[in-house]
Amino acid sequence: MKNLSCPVPISTYDKVLLAHGGGGKLTHQLIQNTFLPILDNELLRQQHDGTEFQVNGNRLVMSTDSFVVQPIFFPGGDIGELAVNGTVNDLACCGAKPLYLSVGLIIEEGLPMADLERIMLSMKKAADKAGVQIITGDTKVVEKGKGDQIFINTTGIGIIERPVHLHPDQVKAGDVVLINGTIADHGICILSSRAGLEFETTIESDTQPLYELINDILEVCPETRVIRDPTRGGLASTLNEIAETSGLCIELDEENIPIQEEVRGACELLGLDPLYVANEGKILVIVPAESAEKVLMAMKKNAAGKDSALIGKVKSSPASTLLIKTTIGSSRIVDMISGEQLPRIC
Amino acid sequence: MKNLSCPVPISTYDKVLLAHGGGGKLTHQLIQNTFLPILDNELLRQQHDGTEFQVNGNRLVMSTDSFVVQPIFFPGGDIGELAVNGTVNDLACCGAKPLYLSVGLIIEEGLPMADLERIMLSMKKAADKAGVQIITGDTKVVEKGKGDQIFINTTGIGIIERPVHLHPDQVKAGDVVLINGTIADHGICILSSRAGLEFETTIESDTQPLYELINDILEVCPETRVIRDPTRGGLASTLNEIAETSGLCIELDEENIPIQEEVRGACELLGLDPLYVANEGKILVIVPAESAEKVLMAMKKNAAGKDSALIGKVKSSPASTLLIKTTIGSSRIVDMISGEQLPRIC
Repeated sequence: MKNLSCPVPISTYDKVLLAHGGGGKLTHQLIQNTFLPILDNELLRQQHDGTEFQVNGNRLVMSTDSFVVQPIFFPGGDIGELAVNGTVNDLACCGAKPLYLSVGLIIEEGLPMADLERIMLSMKKAADKAGVQIITGDTKVVEKGKGDQIFINTTGIGIIERPVHLHPDQVKAGDVVLINGTIADHGICILSSRAGLEFETTIESDTQPLYELINDILEVCPETRVIRDPTRGGLASTLNEIAETSGLCIELDEENIPIQEEVRGACELLGLDPLYVANEGKILVIVPAESAEKVLMAMKKNAAGKDSALIGKVKSSPASTLLIKTTIGSSRIVDMISGEQLPRIC
Repeated sequence: MKNLSCPVPISTYDKVLLAHGGGGKLTHQLIQNTFLPILDNELLRQQHDGTEFQVNGNRLVMSTDSFVVQPIFFPGGDIGELAVNGTVNDLACCGAKPLYLSVGLIIEEGLPMADLERIMLSMKKAADKAGVQIITGDTKVVEKGKGDQIFINTTGIGIIERPVHLHPDQVKAGDVVLINGTIADHGICILSSRAGLEFETTIESDTQPLYELINDILEVCPETRVIRDPTRGGLASTLNEIAETSGLCIELDEENIPIQEEVRGACELLGLDPLYVANEGKILVIVPAESAEKVLMAMKKNAAGKDSALIGKVKSSPASTLLIKTTIGSSRIVDMISGEQLPRIC
């Protein structure tokens, strides 16, 4: 039943819509129905945040992301910092230590040179903080009106040095779901700076590198099932994907999900469900129930995890479903989003 | 003297110009004066088509390129094939066997789904032909008027399995310069399809994977000094970079440089110097003079090198200079191009 909320199969879309890049149902269908069948190979089918491959016994991971966020400068960060942290975090979510990044710039003619320098300085600072090196790059310039200030692709290489196997297919009924802090900060930050909305306090993006936090988790719990960063499409999209791949039910407990009051207020004002709003410095961690306490303790010790919480559990049924127990005690299905909610938040 | 043709230092440009992405002097200055000083690290300073790094004794190479070519479909290829071949060839030019590619798509809302599928099929075909796998990807969609149909970033990983060290700093006086075929085909193909120019025959892009050819060269001549693909900015830009890095003089012999009659005619008609026009399936190979014959023979045996020729030699002076002996016997300096000649040819 749950897929019926998308009324037509992908093949009936004869043009690419904004929602195909939104990280929700249409992105998922584009990948499943077009990219995977055409490009098919065993490694691509891993469908993780990055792809693991081996070179002479070394477990390496490659991950790529293009960043098209608008505005390019926002409270708490900019497109350059986001581009470094985003790819570093995708590598880390695969259990890899991030090593090297490439940077591909597509600049719209007329971008102030000062903006370009500011973005580069920001990338350097973020790379240093995350412990990676930017080792190769490419610059293209397109005519005014054929781009939008600057688009940045970062691709990263990392190495898995622990005997971990993080994947949604490792999730088991009885496991629990943890998060390292408040949700929806990044998406609301971008939306409010775009719309020029004024809230009582400035809501800042949560962009930050997460490798150290993930390393702390894997140190105390090598049997961690899966770690994912709920960026585009928010918690709802990421957890729906895990539910679908594992065939299990994930049940969230609304009252335990950390959210800043200003962010909650902004979501209410804007008519947005924070479960669908993007994060950039958050991870969802699924671990065996018996490991929950030690993992939570390790997470809270790290600055990037001080507001960590146990927010849900994994059950065997209903299959492939994300549920939420609301604060008033009822339970509802949280589907993958169909249209675009917030385009270009990363 | 030769740098005086660019009248102002980079810092006096307060905005990014199309020429900053043209692969000529301004691109070079942007890299030297902005990107390298800010992002500085030892690996980045290699400044090759890709960057070599080591993982537990394995010599790996990473290379990235974003493709913004217009039109996206052209005689002899399309943006998808170009994106695969371009990165595969950059890896191969570093002496690496290409292994894996990532693909980052930035799609303008409204792109026909049929075009997207055609491009994906083309990427798959090119990847198969080049012996690489596309293992991870990312899709972003931007609003109509904020992009231009589709931009594609490919980033590649390859492995160096031979004891080679290909770099401009290996070039020595007395070496010779080889090329694997006719020049300027790709740039003229793109320009003529963009302008709707009709020549007597259709000029096709020369886009093709070059790893096998390069492998054949390194097989017979592991002491090869450097291999580069003269894409943006053409032979003039690539050879100027090598002359600058090595501190030597490269002297081309105009009458030996292969060029199709239609391409020569088109260049005359359009007022373009073919030395500055982009190639996509060509390599410049610098080898010791005593190896020239065996390398040429190996190149001509490969379909991608059947029109190979010896086109120049390396001398000790004038330092850091590219010269050409013209067909009428005179000799002139070929400088790096200052402005943009042909924007968005790749």
